[in-house]
Amino acid sequence: MSEMDAPLDLLAIMAHPDDAELLCGGTLIKSAARGKRVGVIDLTAGEMGSAGDATIRAREAATAGAQMGLSFRACAELPDASLENTHDARMVLCSLLRAFRPHVVITHWKVGRHRDHRIASELVRDACFLSALKKLEVPGEPFRPRKLVYATAFREDAGPPDFVVDVTDQIGRKLDAIAAYTSQFEGATQAGEIFPSGDRGLTQQIRAKMAHYGSLIRVRYGEPFRVDEAMEVDEISELGVSTF
Amino acid sequence: MSEMDAPLDLLAIMAHPDDAELLCGGTLIKSAARGKRVGVIDLTAGEMGSAGDATIRAREAATAGAQMGLSFRACAELPDASLENTHDARMVLCSLLRAFRPHVVITHWKVGRHRDHRIASELVRDACFLSALKKLEVPGEPFRPRKLVYATAFREDAGPPDFVVDVTDQIGRKLDAIAAYTSQFEGATQAGEIFPSGDRGLTQQIRAKMAHYGSLIRVRYGEPFRVDEAMEVDEISELGVSTF
Amino acid sequence: MSEMDAPLDLLAIMAHPDDAELLCGGTLIKSAARGKRVGVIDLTAGEMGSAGDATIRAREAATAGAQMGLSFRACAELPDASLENTHDARMVLCSLLRAFRPHVVITHWKVGRHRDHRIASELVRDACFLSALKKLEVPGEPFRPRKLVYATAFREDAGPPDFVVDVTDQIGRKLDAIAAYTSQFEGATQAGEIFPSGDRGLTQQIRAKMAHYGSLIRVRYGEPFRVDEAMEVDEISELGVSTF
Amino acid sequence: MSEMDAPLDLLAIMAHPDDAELLCGGTLIKSAARGKRVGVIDLTAGEMGSAGDATIRAREAATAGAQMGLSFRACAELPDASLENTHDARMVLCSLLRAFRPHVVITHWKVGRHRDHRIASELVRDACFLSALKKLEVPGEPFRPRKLVYATAFREDAGPPDFVVDVTDQIGRKLDAIAAYTSQFEGATQAGEIFPSGDRGLTQQIRAKMAHYGSLIRVRYGEPFRVDEAMEVDEISELGVSTF
Amino acid sequence: MSEMDAPLDLLAIMAHPDDAELLCGGTLIKSAARGKRVGVIDLTAGEMGSAGDATIRAREAATAGAQMGLSFRACAELPDASLENTHDARMVLCSLLRAFRPHVVITHWKVGRHRDHRIASELVRDACFLSALKKLEVPGEPFRPRKLVYATAFREDAGPPDFVVDVTDQIGRKLDAIAAYTSQFEGATQAGEIFPSGDRGLTQQIRAKMAHYGSLIRVRYGEPFRVDEAMEVDEISELGVSTF
Amino acid sequence: MSEMDAPLDLLAIMAHPDDAELLCGGTLIKSAARGKRVGVIDLTAGEMGSAGDATIRAREAATAGAQMGLSFRACAELPDASLENTHDARMVLCSLLRAFRPHVVITHWKVGRHRDHRIASELVRDACFLSALKKLEVPGEPFRPRKLVYATAFREDAGPPDFVVDVTDQIGRKLDAIAAYTSQFEGATQAGEIFPSGDRGLTQQIRAKMAHYGSLIRVRYGEPFRVDEAMEVDEISELGVSTF
Repeated sequence: MSEMDAPLDLLAIMAHPDDAELLCGGTLIKSAARGKRVGVIDLTAGEMGSAGDATIRAREAATAGAQMGLSFRACAELPDASLENTHDARMVLCSLLRAFRPHVVITHWKVGRHRDHRIASELVRDACFLSALKKLEVPGEPFRPRKLVYATAFREDAGPPDFVVDVTDQIGRKLDAIAAYTSQFEGATQAGEIFPSGDRGLTQQIRAKMAHYGSLIRVRYGEPFRVDEAMEVDEISELGVSTF
Repeated sequence: MSEMDAPLDLLAIMAHPDDAELLCGGTLIKSAARGKRVGVIDLTAGEMGSAGDATIRAREAATAGAQMGLSFRACAELPDASLENTHDARMVLCSLLRAFRPHVVITHWKVGRHRDHRIASELVRDACFLSALKKLEVPGEPFRPRKLVYATAFREDAGPPDFVVDVTDQIGRKLDAIAAYTSQFEGATQAGEIFPSGDRGLTQQIRAKMAHYGSLIRVRYGEPFRVDEAMEVDEISELGVSTF
Repeated sequence: MSEMDAPLDLLAIMAHPDDAELLCGGTLIKSAARGKRVGVIDLTAGEMGSAGDATIRAREAATAGAQMGLSFRACAELPDASLENTHDARMVLCSLLRAFRPHVVITHWKVGRHRDHRIASELVRDACFLSALKKLEVPGEPFRPRKLVYATAFREDAGPPDFVVDVTDQIGRKLDAIAAYTSQFEGATQAGEIFPSGDRGLTQQIRAKMAHYGSLIRVRYGEPFRVDEAMEVDEISELGVSTF
Repeated sequence: MSEMDAPLDLLAIMAHPDDAELLCGGTLIKSAARGKRVGVIDLTAGEMGSAGDATIRAREAATAGAQMGLSFRACAELPDASLENTHDARMVLCSLLRAFRPHVVITHWKVGRHRDHRIASELVRDACFLSALKKLEVPGEPFRPRKLVYATAFREDAGPPDFVVDVTDQIGRKLDAIAAYTSQFEGATQAGEIFPSGDRGLTQQIRAKMAHYGSLIRVRYGEPFRVDEAMEVDEISELGVSTF
Repeated sequence: MSEMDAPLDLLAIMAHPDDAELLCGGTLIKSAARGKRVGVIDLTAGEMGSAGDATIRAREAATAGAQMGLSFRACAELPDASLENTHDARMVLCSLLRAFRPHVVITHWKVGRHRDHRIASELVRDACFLSALKKLEVPGEPFRPRKLVYATAFREDAGPPDFVVDVTDQIGRKLDAIAAYTSQFEGATQAGEIFPSGDRGLTQQIRAKMAHYGSLIRVRYGEPFRVDEAMEVDEISELGVSTF
Repeated sequence: MSEMDAPLDLLAIMAHPDDAELLCGGTLIKSAARGKRVGVIDLTAGEMGSAGDATIRAREAATAGAQMGLSFRACAELPDASLENTHDARMVLCSLLRAFRPHVVITHWKVGRHRDHRIASELVRDACFLSALKKLEVPGEPFRPRKLVYATAFREDAGPPDFVVDVTDQIGRKLDAIAAYTSQFEGATQAGEIFPSGDRGLTQQIRAKMAHYGSLIRVRYGEPFRVDEAMEVDEISELGVSTF
């Protein structure tokens, strides 16, 4: 994709290739299928992963991105397993934000099993704020995403979600996109933030957790999110999610 | 109104006449103006209020209800200042719920300055659950509202709202509806759950608090609510309420 | 069973027949299979349930109890759908506690979808405390259970569990015990505190939630609990549940 | 001011000129008017602000400081929009703390919209602790402020305040001090941590939020704060802030 | 004491004789020694206690009250071990509140080991609110205490205290007042809300917990409290309790 | 000790010599006395302490380590009072983790009075995760501790402990081990995270706090901990810590 696709409606910025798929793949697929311009930025190439290498993972990411219907996927090429929220890293990200002008940004929850995830969350939030500063030494027009959303799937320390997106109709394609990462997941019972659950296979574990999140909004499969702000409801009598 | 107006889209069930106006008047006005069938049940006639009596307050309630555009307002005639969550009180409420079949019910937050408010919250929740039981010794078809929502305006112990409704365009009519309760509010600086704030008049105090709630969703005036369930978001890229 | 089986090692006291199975059936089965003396007290006969009646449900409860390997199951015959935490109800329970002298008691979490569950939680806690008072007008020797535990399965408002019991090896028998309640669950997608999750069948919904709880301790299936006290750990180097 | 004015009774250390005014200006004015020695350290010159520059903002800060009755205001000249909690930055701050020996320090809350605010909070806390170390490679006598207080005005993620200071009599001078920052605020509806609230002007937005905080202690205008420690109350029968 | 001593500056309303001593005895002693008019209402005579009886406990309470320097102690004669928050109980309490007009009321925390304590907390709060209603069928002038405070000593589920009162100079007299309850405490390791702590004697256990609370405000012994409202601070530069 | 002692059953990794003793000395002594292989890594030599120097403190640490029965104690020689969670520091720690392969790691709680403690907590967590990465540029076999535990003694901001270890039988040896740090503690009333409590001596202050933690599990002395995961309970009927 080129900048012609900007502004994006939705941009997931995650630490490693496959994080976007695992954490919010169904949500991205859902928006893309509706004609929204959806993108993913992988902050690192995942080159420190025990399996695969940067080349293999980039190929997998491209395949997965196509399966999700992304308009755009890029790698910020920050260092895997030693991501830092430095001024330079923030400026790399500000530059990308100014180029692609996403309306809504999704990133990792604020704490995480993998330090890259925690750092990514902070780095993305800071860059979203800073990229609007006129005096910033970065190319492009000042720009700030309207909203930052945290994907909390699999995070035991994230608290209950503020909202869940129904991905019942997207669960198959989400699992397909994850399956594109053959270097990472073949035979796995654990991945990214996903804890093992006995000897249950990874796909079944993902299904079980998505079923749990789905039950929170009374649907088969869901993806959970948190925001720092209150939600707005336009018409209270049309609120979904039954209480009883 | 008769039961012909059932089912209701939205029903506020509050302890005393004027509670609905104070806590969610703007939200009721907003829904009614869009053609939703909106009702209010006052659990008591407010007969223990230091000013006014049941007759005066009923007249005020009717006036305020008309100003809000309600399809329906009733008084359950439970005892003011000694509301109890008894079986009998629950059955009274179940009977009303079966008659008017509201889709969404709004009530008081779970704790409150006035014990009637705390009891009302529990009573309403219990009745909403029970009224679906087929064997209940109450007339009407089994029915359960889809959703219960708690109005948290003015409650210092309610925690941050899950969502806020923009009532910028309704603030004038809300204040008019409150003003209909002349027996209660003339010259007041405090009412219901509204704490005083120095010598600021009641209307100004309401405006100040509504402005605070509005700021949580970046609008001039808002009314805050909490729910026990996660929210559902259909299209994440269209989420409102800016993060920065 | 007679009082000869007292003292019990473990006693679940729940509002309705089937609540014990749904909320902690695997845990009861596990303890019973190890030779612990395990009992269940159903506070009500569930006579207000939309399907079945007291007789049918008692037969189902007996069948389920046998499948779980209980030493003891009784019904306190308090009124379904209008359980109250009255002095009389507490004394009924104190009498049972003195007769069966359970070491650990399990009950409902403090809040719940069904008011009987909330009331049961409070009632059981109060009775456990009171039954040790010498001057109580109740037969039997003063007695107090050592510990009260809250089963939080399916409760969205219970917060994260303090601990989870691995019921991987008991999941089949738990589902069998639940299936004994044919009057309640045939074709159901929702029961007790279990929210629906789209059109997923009840058994699959239970499996999905148990899988979620299991993942919290890295096993296939688990049942979650909370306690009011700190946990004690004897040997810190042998702690289970991996962090990463 | 010179070090002759040390020790200070109260020192606000904030990220940018105008932060002290916005967050705790009324409190500073109140203490200064009582003869307390009150100071402000601006960690940066605010040189990255979209409007104004370091020179303009310094002039504005001096004007505002005079209006607040400060004994002392300095700029630590750390870099705006890229403040970092480095050893060097901590030592700069330790040196200032040793020179001015404040009894109580106020800084930003721990999280914030602007990363400089979050970093400032951490940096100030760390420097307050470290400056007491004898072996620190910094001029001056070892010194540690007695107390660190966080100003939480406008922070939606700060939780309820531990205490509020009544600034009813200071609101006019606070707004005057803010108005001194003409480069920043003319025509603004948003500033620092202040979210917009529809098209309400900045001064009115500040008034509305201060009114909200004031209501928490039953006065017209207040400024909210949090502390990490319990409060001490000397005479419980003289406690202020009515419960009902 | 007669009503001549009204209005009281401070009134503890607790479930059983000895609760006031255990939970806030030092605070009462401190206020009384300064000339404040301090009272205690025991809601029950403690007649269900395993040791002693109503007569013995009344004598002990009188002795303890004298040791604390109370102006006033009364027993509301509500039923021990079956305290209920009924309309009648509230009216009994309203009548006492109108007679003695306390400025500040202390009661139990909202949850508790003993159900009487939980009920007392709710009952006292409700009565404090209601006693201001003009139409209440209770003798005396409408009156409402300015403030309600919860004593949280020994309560593991109370959360951290909002404030602590230094009772270092009162610890001896507090222990003496407790010792007046010889029927209850001789040889005890546990009492009221005080959990045992191995074989440590009760006095030592009280000292250990008071030392813990004291450490929260950096003094030898303290008593902890919570309030529902924000605290007010008049002069921030004079705040006590060191941060570091 | 040599690597022959690896793998360790338990390893405390703390910022300064004496932190392990203060925070979890009793727990280490208890495990070691049972034959577990227990170690301590001091991240810094404590060379910035106002008293003592690196040599003196190393000697004290060795003495204390012997008293605790450690198999192993090392100093990572990171800089005191300016500990940073850098890539290099993480690699130093990964190298040690790979050499000594601890099953369970104890470190500081996530927030702290001393910034080194906060940084240590984050650094240890990150290193535990990273040391399992095959591609890490660090000697040794990839390794990840099974579990990370946070010692929360004395931390006012840590929340209630998830579990407490009974150290009643170890309190004497714990105090002896602390007393080995004569350069730090002679005549002290405050140390590390321990706040002063009036003029109470340090040993008495430690005893008072340990008594408080012990009371949470109904024993004389305890040390408190938190974990990020749920606990697992094998046999619910054997749970300790009485509720009443």
